[in-house]
Amino acid sequence: MDWQQIFATRTTRMKASEIRELLKLLDQPDIISFAGGIPDPALFPAEAFQKALGDALTHNADAALQYSVSEGYGPLRDWIAAEMGRLDVPCTRDNILITSGSQQALDYLGKLMLSPGDTALVGWPTYLGALGAFNAYEPRYDKLDPETNRAAEDYAQAAAPGRVKFAYTSVDFANPTGRTLTGTMRERLLDLAEELDIAVIEDAAYQSLRYDGEALAPILAREIARKGDIDACRTLYCGSFSKTLAPGLRVGWVCGAQDVIQQMVLLKQAGDLHSSTLNQMAIAAVAEAQFDSHVARIRAAYRTRRDAMLAALEEHMPEGVTWTRPEGGMFIWLTLPQHMRGDELLARSLETERVAFVPGHAFFADGSGANTMRLSFSRTDADAIAQGIARLGRLISAA
Amino acid sequence: MDWQQIFATRTTRMKASEIRELLKLLDQPDIISFAGGIPDPALFPAEAFQKALGDALTHNADAALQYSVSEGYGPLRDWIAAEMGRLDVPCTRDNILITSGSQQALDYLGKLMLSPGDTALVGWPTYLGALGAFNAYEPRYDKLDPETNRAAEDYAQAAAPGRVKFAYTSVDFANPTGRTLTGTMRERLLDLAEELDIAVIEDAAYQSLRYDGEALAPILAREIARKGDIDACRTLYCGSFSKTLAPGLRVGWVCGAQDVIQQMVLLKQAGDLHSSTLNQMAIAAVAEAQFDSHVARIRAAYRTRRDAMLAALEEHMPEGVTWTRPEGGMFIWLTLPQHMRGDELLARSLETERVAFVPGHAFFADGSGANTMRLSFSRTDADAIAQGIARLGRLISAA
Repeated sequence: MDWQQIFATRTTRMKASEIRELLKLLDQPDIISFAGGIPDPALFPAEAFQKALGDALTHNADAALQYSVSEGYGPLRDWIAAEMGRLDVPCTRDNILITSGSQQALDYLGKLMLSPGDTALVGWPTYLGALGAFNAYEPRYDKLDPETNRAAEDYAQAAAPGRVKFAYTSVDFANPTGRTLTGTMRERLLDLAEELDIAVIEDAAYQSLRYDGEALAPILAREIARKGDIDACRTLYCGSFSKTLAPGLRVGWVCGAQDVIQQMVLLKQAGDLHSSTLNQMAIAAVAEAQFDSHVARIRAAYRTRRDAMLAALEEHMPEGVTWTRPEGGMFIWLTLPQHMRGDELLARSLETERVAFVPGHAFFADGSGANTMRLSFSRTDADAIAQGIARLGRLISAA
Repeated sequence: MDWQQIFATRTTRMKASEIRELLKLLDQPDIISFAGGIPDPALFPAEAFQKALGDALTHNADAALQYSVSEGYGPLRDWIAAEMGRLDVPCTRDNILITSGSQQALDYLGKLMLSPGDTALVGWPTYLGALGAFNAYEPRYDKLDPETNRAAEDYAQAAAPGRVKFAYTSVDFANPTGRTLTGTMRERLLDLAEELDIAVIEDAAYQSLRYDGEALAPILAREIARKGDIDACRTLYCGSFSKTLAPGLRVGWVCGAQDVIQQMVLLKQAGDLHSSTLNQMAIAAVAEAQFDSHVARIRAAYRTRRDAMLAALEEHMPEGVTWTRPEGGMFIWLTLPQHMRGDELLARSLETERVAFVPGHAFFADGSGANTMRLSFSRTDADAIAQGIARLGRLISAA
């Protein structure tokens, strides 16, 4: 049977993610992995989840195991709305949609806004999973660079005959670069969005994982400061519990204007009815009981690892290699000398040094960035980080 | 802000589901509801889930709370593959993709196959959630009627200049009609699919809920009998744990040719990475421990309710009203005299008789079927069924 003539045109743009394929390597015990970018399971609040799930099934099994509304579990949406308030985003549960992780938020935002041929503005590089989600809706991409923004007319012209629909950006300690948008860049991005009359997708998956420096107000908070009301805003904020509590439960959210949230509820209803009721209850209970103290604990652990990786890079990397110094998150971004290729280096590294990382070119919508790579420090202890970076430095020095 | 110029064209086809809106009524205690079509929570295996979740978090928390592969949890896919084998569908875990309920399977199958303007063949009426899922991919619909199939050329011609991509059908005790496709109809549907060279989506959400009569081999089993190998088949079977174990955990599956499953894994990866790891583990453990005995228990309970509803309809419905006599599932389909409208009747029923049901026209892709309605017997005990049908009979008799 020739499935190619049955499959929709969008499938030609959907390829296997190199990162997901790499995840399969993580189980080999002798590999030191800086790939992935997944939380350390030793830091999961497993006992708190066990209690929360037990409580839900003891006192509330009828609801916990039943169908529920597409918007999400009310008390969880209330908790998130309060948390958004602490980030200077005053809102109510009606501004919150629960999604199955922020990956689903990105999928639904692409589905909401992109018709084939529309343009999405994304960073060069940007989060690979965002490109994966958006690709299904067959957009064109243009390069968003908050440091050197082009004029709005340039973007609009490049998008013709389609239309620019949104700018997507990861604001804090971005995946893959570890970079944080400055306050000025956030304001400038808003200016550009106003001029183009487009939406802003603010990916804040790592927002809580700040290890030093001052927290910066989200783009959505800045827009509310300009306009006075979230329901007048064009920014859609995507949050996640995957980096703070646990990814395996698949709970994230979108926060934005009610008009958009209501339309997204319809997408959610048509897409999977709702996210797991039981998991939403468990997340709500654990967040209520210990979000701040738990996040403080994992911040301390990841800070140590970031410091270990930065120190090891300083010690072992040869001249000509540069890297970012993230104030939080899980990633450091390496730029190699122009003649080196991350993918070739990975193949050699797995063979001889047994160190894994992600070659950077996959994060570029145009396939550039061959001489870059992403290192994650989240799932490796400080000793292994030192050893792994030493091996990697040896490999790069010899390349 | 004018969101209409930002939203994709597909959003014009995505409207609020009347059924989901009706669900909000179910909480009013004096309403007897035959709407919904959701399981009775008194029949959930809550203790078994509590044990399974406790076990997963005691012995396997690192995996249960972590990211996992997009294909789904291996042991659950093995269990499902064995279960499919019992239905004469020999296959392996590589033929199984775990989805977040079968609603997500329908969404991803639409996403996989439909480009705007392609045609999907669906029943008149058909499952509302399937239309909701497919609508996002902007197809045209043509009427599938396994009793009076038109010639393949007719379908192909009507689809031009697009292409027919698949036929969607609910095989056993369908939502909304309660009807089951006979063996002959299943074979004929396969013949049509062969002639048109299209896929078949076999929605088997209610397959396990048979109360009497002989089980019929799924369409996929019949195609394997013809071709000898699932990987040569065009039928994609959608199963669900929502009607047997619990819907709140959102676990379903697609079973089909590896070529299709592999492409769907990419959609899943881009869509939400994977379904909840913890929930998949819990479903696997509960299914392993007591699927057959639990399903036997709920079958007995629902059978009593179906019998109560059929008896009450016989007693209370005036002449000119007809209904289906399902061998399983959760639904009976009523056809009213031509001049009556289900939606008007519902408005009056909620006002005076306090009985809820779903007007039938929403289940028709062309909006016809005004004089039909869907009654669910799954969530109401036999006494309340008798009382509710008596009230409904009174209302219809007076109309």
